[in-house]
Amino acid sequence: MSRGLWTTVSANEVYNNGRGLIIRCEEVRLPDGRVISDFYQVELPSHVTVYALTLDGAVVCLRQYKHGPRKVALTLPGGLIADNEEPLTAAKRELREETGFVSVNWTSLGNFTVGGNQGIGTAHLFLAKGAEMVQPPASGDLEEMHLEYHAPERVLTELGSGSFPVLAHAAAIALANIETKL
Amino acid sequence: MSRGLWTTVSANEVYNNGRGLIIRCEEVRLPDGRVISDFYQVELPSHVTVYALTLDGAVVCLRQYKHGPRKVALTLPGGLIADNEEPLTAAKRELREETGFVSVNWTSLGNFTVGGNQGIGTAHLFLAKGAEMVQPPASGDLEEMHLEYHAPERVLTELGSGSFPVLAHAAAIALANIETKL
Repeated sequence: MSRGLWTTVSANEVYNNGRGLIIRCEEVRLPDGRVISDFYQVELPSHVTVYALTLDGAVVCLRQYKHGPRKVALTLPGGLIADNEEPLTAAKRELREETGFVSVNWTSLGNFTVGGNQGIGTAHLFLAKGAEMVQPPASGDLEEMHLEYHAPERVLTELGSGSFPVLAHAAAIALANIETKL
Repeated sequence: MSRGLWTTVSANEVYNNGRGLIIRCEEVRLPDGRVISDFYQVELPSHVTVYALTLDGAVVCLRQYKHGPRKVALTLPGGLIADNEEPLTAAKRELREETGFVSVNWTSLGNFTVGGNQGIGTAHLFLAKGAEMVQPPASGDLEEMHLEYHAPERVLTELGSGSFPVLAHAAAIALANIETKL
């Protein structure tokens, strides 16, 4: 009984915006037999975040407006995974589209569920080393983006002072720092 | 014009579960004048995550089922911030409720917006050092939780092998490792 999984008895779609955002109200059964009639799940597309180091050892950053935190801030390249796209393929595509950089040296920094209780998709975090610019950026995104290159130590300082407001970016930066110092 | 903020022209609530989950469809105006009629925002309660080190230098972990990733896994203590509660107060409360531990040595590891585009609340991450158990755990949560103590190096190894599936926990572990080694 202990350490047991929950069982989803039913999942009732209560909202769907037709563009990947779906809310489901689940009836779940706990290992001790209790039934919870309304445990909500939020489905959103999974996404990638890339901590890319140039050949010179600088981190490829983007300064842009993000509507989640509602401010212009430092971010890492990344974006939504397209239908049937592998996360690594999405990471390479987003890095190239948003920054013009490519790399042949990729490492996974992990895949993490965004919401421990509600799900909310998966954040796939990557480290790309030896990145080189091969084309001008052309993200096609709504946000205006400005490329910035910062030393890893500077990125950590900016992270500590709140300049990177998005959780997946903070995780990728911290994990990349640990990975590159192992 | 460049680096400009977006303006929310209108925000239409399209779903509300009455328990903190609200979906809004916003009409936003971009700095270049374009208007996007349907940019969705997801509101969920903000939460805290605590990386707590005991007096012996072990990390206080919880093994429990999480319905987001749908598995029994390693987690850090934490939970939702109550109405009008300060994040640090919530962190102290959740650590005490879920693990029985208290600490007088708290450091913020940062506050991060969960969704760069959709918002989805804020993750407040904390480091607590010198934690001592003063009472039995009594979380009152739906999940059965099992306390485990692991050395920081072991926690990093478990993180690298996918044992901690939740994004906020991964961020807190990585940031705490950097913070404690500065």
